[in-house]
Amino acid sequence: MGPDSNILSQMRPFFNPRAIAVLGVSKDLWKFGSVIYGSIRNFAPQIPLYPVNSRISELMGEKVYPSISDLPEEVDLAVICLPAPLVPEAVRECSAHGISAVEVISGGFGETGTAEGKRLQAELGSLAGPGLRIVGPNCFGVYSPAGGVTIIPGSGYPRIAGSVGFMAQSGALTDVFCKLSQDHGFYINQAVSYGNACDINEVDLAKYFLADEKTRIAAAYIEGVRAGKSFFEAVQNLAAAKPTIIWKAGLSPGGAKAVASHTGSLAGSEAVWTAFFKQTGAIQALSLEDLSDTVSAFYHLPTTRDNRVVAICGAGGFAVAASDACYRAGLSLASFDEATHAKLTSILPPASSATNNPLDCVNPFPSPSMLRDILETVASSGSTGSIIIDKVTMSVPMRHILGHSRMVRSEEEPWLEELPVRIRNQFNMPVLVVMRDGGDPSYDSERRRLSKYYHENGVAVYSTTQRAFDALAKMIKYYKRKGQNNDR
Amino acid sequence: MGPDSNILSQMRPFFNPRAIAVLGVSKDLWKFGSVIYGSIRNFAPQIPLYPVNSRISELMGEKVYPSISDLPEEVDLAVICLPAPLVPEAVRECSAHGISAVEVISGGFGETGTAEGKRLQAELGSLAGPGLRIVGPNCFGVYSPAGGVTIIPGSGYPRIAGSVGFMAQSGALTDVFCKLSQDHGFYINQAVSYGNACDINEVDLAKYFLADEKTRIAAAYIEGVRAGKSFFEAVQNLAAAKPTIIWKAGLSPGGAKAVASHTGSLAGSEAVWTAFFKQTGAIQALSLEDLSDTVSAFYHLPTTRDNRVVAICGAGGFAVAASDACYRAGLSLASFDEATHAKLTSILPPASSATNNPLDCVNPFPSPSMLRDILETVASSGSTGSIIIDKVTMSVPMRHILGHSRMVRSEEEPWLEELPVRIRNQFNMPVLVVMRDGGDPSYDSERRRLSKYYHENGVAVYSTTQRAFDALAKMIKYYKRKGQNNDR
Repeated sequence: MGPDSNILSQMRPFFNPRAIAVLGVSKDLWKFGSVIYGSIRNFAPQIPLYPVNSRISELMGEKVYPSISDLPEEVDLAVICLPAPLVPEAVRECSAHGISAVEVISGGFGETGTAEGKRLQAELGSLAGPGLRIVGPNCFGVYSPAGGVTIIPGSGYPRIAGSVGFMAQSGALTDVFCKLSQDHGFYINQAVSYGNACDINEVDLAKYFLADEKTRIAAAYIEGVRAGKSFFEAVQNLAAAKPTIIWKAGLSPGGAKAVASHTGSLAGSEAVWTAFFKQTGAIQALSLEDLSDTVSAFYHLPTTRDNRVVAICGAGGFAVAASDACYRAGLSLASFDEATHAKLTSILPPASSATNNPLDCVNPFPSPSMLRDILETVASSGSTGSIIIDKVTMSVPMRHILGHSRMVRSEEEPWLEELPVRIRNQFNMPVLVVMRDGGDPSYDSERRRLSKYYHENGVAVYSTTQRAFDALAKMIKYYKRKGQNNDR
Repeated sequence: MGPDSNILSQMRPFFNPRAIAVLGVSKDLWKFGSVIYGSIRNFAPQIPLYPVNSRISELMGEKVYPSISDLPEEVDLAVICLPAPLVPEAVRECSAHGISAVEVISGGFGETGTAEGKRLQAELGSLAGPGLRIVGPNCFGVYSPAGGVTIIPGSGYPRIAGSVGFMAQSGALTDVFCKLSQDHGFYINQAVSYGNACDINEVDLAKYFLADEKTRIAAAYIEGVRAGKSFFEAVQNLAAAKPTIIWKAGLSPGGAKAVASHTGSLAGSEAVWTAFFKQTGAIQALSLEDLSDTVSAFYHLPTTRDNRVVAICGAGGFAVAASDACYRAGLSLASFDEATHAKLTSILPPASSATNNPLDCVNPFPSPSMLRDILETVASSGSTGSIIIDKVTMSVPMRHILGHSRMVRSEEEPWLEELPVRIRNQFNMPVLVVMRDGGDPSYDSERRRLSKYYHENGVAVYSTTQRAFDALAKMIKYYKRKGQNNDR
């Protein structure tokens, strides 16, 4: 039985530990050992958590145990924050006490570039096997809300588990991705910052995300890979089963140099990675925002392979901009048949500059009943696969905040904000709403409320027109390719 | 004397009227006449403002005058919101009473596509001349904070005049640009939504922005132009003197169609516009965000032609991402000489993955004194033209909000946030700070405070790494070209 054949059971204690030991806690509360101890304690007080240090007896009001052998119960996950030279021996001791999962947070290994650092990392790696898996060293650890574990800065992360699996060498990127997930209203099942990857690496995690039933969408930040062929195969299998979105950083010359100093990986050429994405079917993201935007589309929207889109805009200028954004994203503006066009013309205000797609509602405050009629006509016309609503103020409170009552008379129907959700559910069709950032605190607060409502009800929200079209395009492209493969 | 030879004096009453008449106010407070009357009244109560309507005697507690001839003093600007068929006669009456500037807000002209609409617009245009200039019809009007005039939704706009001139056919885009200016902390001198442009058009406004001393930066949203050659010449002259940033929308096939229905203009091919930008030296923006990002760079940053940049990042992963963003923007990562590199290595924490550019501070909370030493070393090294700070938490309150005190021990020096401003002033060097959107209300509020402080002190703030590099690149490219032209 090879080390990967039981990836689910081997990873289990990282994500759902029965009890956790933290080795290397310190009286100095700013040291990583105490920080991660405090983070996990705060994140999941219900998980048995044992600080270990032979030189102190108490930490944050809890008893500190002198060694692993003194713990009152068996633990299956150890989090190690000891100085690098002490780590291999500590891992041996963990293994001897039946611990099968170890996270090594400490740095001081291969990333230092020193012979001693490399030697220590090789020694650490040699301890791993099917009965003892290691995440790290030089990482922030694992976030798994269902299992009560979190990374160094993750004490305030959501306790709700979702369906996104995330991996990154970088701890900081893992942290920022977990934070962005909250703005996008998607929930993470498990996130792993795997650092120097002396054992568990991007190949193991790709296999895990494929095997794990709760992972519905896989996302990754990749600087470089060690075993190109294995990674290619693992990602190809993963992407065939689940949307797999990868931000491959370091594709520029300077970026490749930065990758080398950051994680000592080979960044690889742009041509190689272009072929990688084309052949594996994984979706390429070009930035942190692109990565989280795309995950958000897969998370919230119903699937479609139809690349026709209707944009409903609150002004003629935005209709023009939406056309350009649609084109740049590689999607098609849907065409209406004559009957649909006639119906829309009768619904839209006479001043509308565009009764063809994109539709121009003339102002950002169309009456709720008019907007309902437009949405129903468009969604039921059979002419489109998705709808993007841009520069239309979608709630009564927001209309007040933006001063609509000084400008436009319209019914104040509280169901206005429900329209995108109704259409999404009735027609099982992706509906995306563009709501710009910025504005005063009352705008921010209402934007946050409305986004949350949409996210909880399967409507995706983006802060610019282009980001909405780009994320939708990546989703449609994935399902089209998958459909073609399945149809073969 | 042609109609353009006295563009400054002809435009004066639009931007600095002595008194304003609003024709077409209504008891119905949601009609455009009453809305814009209310907007201007609220925006600038000190400006003499006279509502005119023969059928009502009072509006919002103020006396309504039956006709222009009944006004108690001479006015120089008339804002007209009458039904289209009544507009030409009203304009004649305005002219007869010495009014030399008319804004026609009303729609129902050329944009309807009807013969009658086109005839009315032609009639209106025929009334214009050096002694009577017309903005509109079918527009939102003019915003000029120094002169106390504002557009339909502009009652809450800043009363502070800045140095940006903006023009757009679209009223909605004018509104959104004016709102975005507030997030970016730049102030507008004058913004004109010129609608169907029966008289004043993009050529006049380009000439005006060139002639007007207070306009330091010109920005435009353009769907199409009527007189290509005149526009080319006007923009070429303008861009030679002042940064001129143009978002040309409708470059895609669908966008061109949308332009035709929105403003009846010819959008023009992408190749034509690529040549236009190359030959005029105007800067092309690709979206609303790009437009305001770029204006922000010109507004806040000191000029430079040096395309070398140093990025200072709060994590190794962000250093990699910054390299890629720099490359995509067409800028160069600065190289350090040996002495500078040695000095930076001694300042940065031992765990730093990158002591070459981009610099990795290891975590987003470097101590203020370390950050000061890094910034001073970099800025004084002679190796770079600009500095971008990314993923570094730049204020003590923000560090508390983000929970730094649970993670990193560092001095709480209130001068931390002043560092970018000090470096900017001491070295007269562009400094840009990347601060991401999102987060909870306390984050939003501190982000707003800190952005405002930076904007008031010549530091530009962007919400993503790529947007910071792109905006800086557009600024540098403009000054490089200008420098080359001047050096000839």
